[in-house]
Amino acid sequence: MTTPTLHSLEPDFAKSGGLIPAVAQDAETGEILMLAYMNRESYLKTLATGEVHYWSRSRQELWHKGDSSGHTQKVKSLYLDCDLDAVVVKIEQVGGVACHTGRRSCFFHKLAKSGQFEILD
Amino acid sequence: MTTPTLHSLEPDFAKSGGLIPAVAQDAETGEILMLAYMNRESYLKTLATGEVHYWSRSRQELWHKGDSSGHTQKVKSLYLDCDLDAVVVKIEQVGGVACHTGRRSCFFHKLAKSGQFEILD
Repeated sequence: MTTPTLHSLEPDFAKSGGLIPAVAQDAETGEILMLAYMNRESYLKTLATGEVHYWSRSRQELWHKGDSSGHTQKVKSLYLDCDLDAVVVKIEQVGGVACHTGRRSCFFHKLAKSGQFEILD
Repeated sequence: MTTPTLHSLEPDFAKSGGLIPAVAQDAETGEILMLAYMNRESYLKTLATGEVHYWSRSRQELWHKGDSSGHTQKVKSLYLDCDLDAVVVKIEQVGGVACHTGRRSCFFHKLAKSGQFEILD
């Protein structure tokens, strides 16, 4: 087994006006729990603390996920894509709830055959 | 088993200037393969054809994924998030390659303990 070559990389925040999408995925099950945005500050905070930080577009402020709910997200691994303008964070979801609606995942509107959406629990 | 209540929903394209992020996830393995963007036209094309269409930000045009490479993405299921401003599409990745670099997934830069990134095959 050879030691992998390592590269110093940082997301390309400039490309999309300072924010890149970050997908939180359950590290155990692979379930996609939420998608939010990171600016450079929140990205660096995530790396430094091991807990996911986003940038809240509605509140225009650094958002330590779980700060008020206790439902923090512990970083298990982190990936950048080919263009360095998207992040996947595999996490442990503390409390088992990522969504502000109380659901495990934010992606609870499922397309049905009719073209309408079913709301999952 | 009761019949689920169905809702007529559409993504909130206006919120982010007409584009929303769309995450393509392997329907079998749960692996996240790529993240790109959809406008209303590409979203409706995706629903109508059962093959994923994005909006290419670099080329500023409708992008039928796989049109040139043959690596189309067949929709298995589709989800909107709580705020209706992000999409997850569970897909079958034809040809097994989503990334233009020839890799299965675009998320091949993996954060190492050193803070640098390992490039996965």
